[in-house]
Amino acid sequence: MASGSGVVEEVAKLIEVKAQRQSDEGKHKFVLKTPKGTRDYNPKQMAIREKVFSTIIGCFKRHGAETIDTPVFELKETLTGKYGEDSKLIYDLKDQGGELLSLRYDLTVPFARYLAMNKITNIKRYHIAKVYRRDNPAMTRGRYREFYQCDFDIAGKYDPMIPDAECVKIMHEILTDLQLGDFLIKVNDRRILDGIFAVCGVPDSKFRTICSSVDKLDKTLWEDVKNEMVGEKGLAPEAADQIGEYVRLNGGMALVEQLLQDPQLSQNKLALEGLEDIKMLFQYLRLFGVTDHVSFDLSLARGLDYYTGVIYEAVLLQNQGEVQFQQQNDHAEESVGVGSVAGGGRYDELVGMFDAKGRKVPCVGLSIGIERIFSLMEQKVQASEEKVRTTETQVLVAAAQKRLLEERLKLISELWDSGIQAEMLYKKNPKLLNQLQYCEETGIPLVAIIGEQELKDGVVKLRVVSTREEVDVSRRNLVEEIKKRSGQSS
Amino acid sequence: MASGSGVVEEVAKLIEVKAQRQSDEGKHKFVLKTPKGTRDYNPKQMAIREKVFSTIIGCFKRHGAETIDTPVFELKETLTGKYGEDSKLIYDLKDQGGELLSLRYDLTVPFARYLAMNKITNIKRYHIAKVYRRDNPAMTRGRYREFYQCDFDIAGKYDPMIPDAECVKIMHEILTDLQLGDFLIKVNDRRILDGIFAVCGVPDSKFRTICSSVDKLDKTLWEDVKNEMVGEKGLAPEAADQIGEYVRLNGGMALVEQLLQDPQLSQNKLALEGLEDIKMLFQYLRLFGVTDHVSFDLSLARGLDYYTGVIYEAVLLQNQGEVQFQQQNDHAEESVGVGSVAGGGRYDELVGMFDAKGRKVPCVGLSIGIERIFSLMEQKVQASEEKVRTTETQVLVAAAQKRLLEERLKLISELWDSGIQAEMLYKKNPKLLNQLQYCEETGIPLVAIIGEQELKDGVVKLRVVSTREEVDVSRRNLVEEIKKRSGQSS
Repeated sequence: MASGSGVVEEVAKLIEVKAQRQSDEGKHKFVLKTPKGTRDYNPKQMAIREKVFSTIIGCFKRHGAETIDTPVFELKETLTGKYGEDSKLIYDLKDQGGELLSLRYDLTVPFARYLAMNKITNIKRYHIAKVYRRDNPAMTRGRYREFYQCDFDIAGKYDPMIPDAECVKIMHEILTDLQLGDFLIKVNDRRILDGIFAVCGVPDSKFRTICSSVDKLDKTLWEDVKNEMVGEKGLAPEAADQIGEYVRLNGGMALVEQLLQDPQLSQNKLALEGLEDIKMLFQYLRLFGVTDHVSFDLSLARGLDYYTGVIYEAVLLQNQGEVQFQQQNDHAEESVGVGSVAGGGRYDELVGMFDAKGRKVPCVGLSIGIERIFSLMEQKVQASEEKVRTTETQVLVAAAQKRLLEERLKLISELWDSGIQAEMLYKKNPKLLNQLQYCEETGIPLVAIIGEQELKDGVVKLRVVSTREEVDVSRRNLVEEIKKRSGQSS
Repeated sequence: MASGSGVVEEVAKLIEVKAQRQSDEGKHKFVLKTPKGTRDYNPKQMAIREKVFSTIIGCFKRHGAETIDTPVFELKETLTGKYGEDSKLIYDLKDQGGELLSLRYDLTVPFARYLAMNKITNIKRYHIAKVYRRDNPAMTRGRYREFYQCDFDIAGKYDPMIPDAECVKIMHEILTDLQLGDFLIKVNDRRILDGIFAVCGVPDSKFRTICSSVDKLDKTLWEDVKNEMVGEKGLAPEAADQIGEYVRLNGGMALVEQLLQDPQLSQNKLALEGLEDIKMLFQYLRLFGVTDHVSFDLSLARGLDYYTGVIYEAVLLQNQGEVQFQQQNDHAEESVGVGSVAGGGRYDELVGMFDAKGRKVPCVGLSIGIERIFSLMEQKVQASEEKVRTTETQVLVAAAQKRLLEERLKLISELWDSGIQAEMLYKKNPKLLNQLQYCEETGIPLVAIIGEQELKDGVVKLRVVSTREEVDVSRRNLVEEIKKRSGQSS
């Protein structure tokens, strides 16, 4: 027994030693990575991102929008029952005592919660923030688990199709301003789809799930979508075939007129309402001069459950940049069509779901998917070999000799206090050459050089990095001179 | 038996009916709130927030910083062992299969992870983003569970105290630019504290926990801090008393000189290094002209484990706005002193913790705590009754008569396409009075009115809302005229 117990103790000790050793080894054995499906942005990427944001925000402000912000997480129950089959992709927080929380899946549901909570019935707002989906990431294609959405929404009871047309116009403006090449905005209406399902004999209870199948048509062949409808979802093959006839149609105003005459569809109240609204939408879009980029496409379904009327989606068309982009992807993704970069639609019931008395606030909005646009812009910048500056520094404060740290500190402080963007090297006695090289590397256009002579004369030698031109500027005029040369009004 | 089973069935049915009823009732019974310790920002609050951000970013850019971004969550192990006693406040995500994740607790640890991961040895960057702490919220005082940090850090091996002094200068500039009233920047050095602990006889193993106690001195009386050191942490009372003598000292350069002569402290290598550096820091800060707002304060300890050298913290001093602010708080918080709005310090070991070979990248940085500043700014705006515009709309496109929707759509489209910020009412036939009222309410300065006569004459009636002055402008010159009146160069 004593010896047996000795063995047990020995083993326990060995296990402990081993654990200790592992933990010692583990000390510097971090997995150095960001979580799956996420990325850091380095300064160059940030410079591109800020340019894209400023274009988008510029457009949203041009249309008179305010902005709001909401927390990154919501009460879990706020998100429950809003996303249909996609709900499984929501990130939950660990129950650490207190409320059950989930990361926001989009900005639309938090917006609806915000409206209901504050009893707001009219607002035009934009919101740019990150959202979270535990989806299968495909990062080379710009599909991430953490990604930005840029949302613009109009809430309020208004005359039909005026705000809806503005949303399409905004997508058109942004895609034009970003210069991403040719694009197409597909539009459809949930009521037309529901009408089609009805006249094709789909039972009411299957509308949403059949709609989800139709949504896959941009990435999947009709045959496979039909198999899903019939095999998985139990639809009669004839009904599926009939749906197939409709959802493969696309065109412009002529198609709207044709369907308004369709003997079956025109008998369906919902479809008729949808078609009349699409007709009005096209009329307004014609006045906005954007119909050349808009297509009435009956295969457009949009994934989310909450849409109730007009829906739209913008896709980039295959172009030079796109071909390059496709080639970078792994084979599995090569066959997939050009992805959508923006989408949205009307959701008249969502706010009511949050209101105790079910009071409705009709809404229509759009969302720009930024990550894919970033990927394209990054490639464009790389291809052009254009040099992207990541700072705005106007001038480097430099010393020509040793022992001038105190003088540099005094001068740079004067410049900062006058609003000049200035840097200096964090060395007591840097070499002039190193100081000039730093400017070349980082793109700083000016150098303010002090030496013993300059200090005696009360001047600073101002050097233009690109031309190597040097001029003595009196200390008193230095700020004004730098502002003048930076094209700033002083 | 049969009758007994009948009862069971009856009860089961009743329970089911009750559950059904509850779930029906529950349908519209959302708890309409944001998670504990979080808030929405409405458009007015966003306007203030953006003003504060633009001041801060302006200062960071003036000092030549680039910017980066990191994901909102990190691998859990990335955050482990970095925050000492505060680690319990970290939000974990639910294990849904895959990696274990936590929401970031600050921006410093993700920054260190970013540097190590990308083998970056030199960078000056800012990062403005939300961080998450499951702390006890006190929202009226601007203490939230989700809050912004505005971080500026300088990484790289440089000559001592030059980057450190710049960080203090930046805090000084930002607090001056934000016009929040008088403020004080306390500075200290972890090595001085550790030296004090050593000469007072604190065992090495207790340095960090005794440091945590000292950190409470800004909110707690010395007697209570001493009790914690002695009672909870087992320090000898004489050691505590001796610490008490030191940590209650504060002053300027004279105090530094005095402590350099202190018979005990001057014998401690760490303390001596710290004191020499503080002396150098004060010399540089004098050249920057900011010493009048800086105090060498031996009670300053900072909570986080990772600091290794100079530390600093900025507090707002009691002033008019502050008194008001205090009165709004509930009684329990009334006695608490004025909170800190910015802080930071040197952390030379953190990046090395992520490097497989332990390679160090010395860092120094600062963080501005924005929520408290927002609260103060919001009050300031409310008190001043200054009207905050939440949109930038320059002109409303209005109709003088009915049946002009199409003409309004055409005109507004022209304006948008020319870069004019324009709105219209989303009604087919709005009354002119309602259109003018909308401008009054939202602060839109101009109205472009079309009527049948104007259309015939090829003009638009441009009305200045504030003066009611009206002038006919030819359609061709409208864009230029609006830009001119908005002070935009055309």
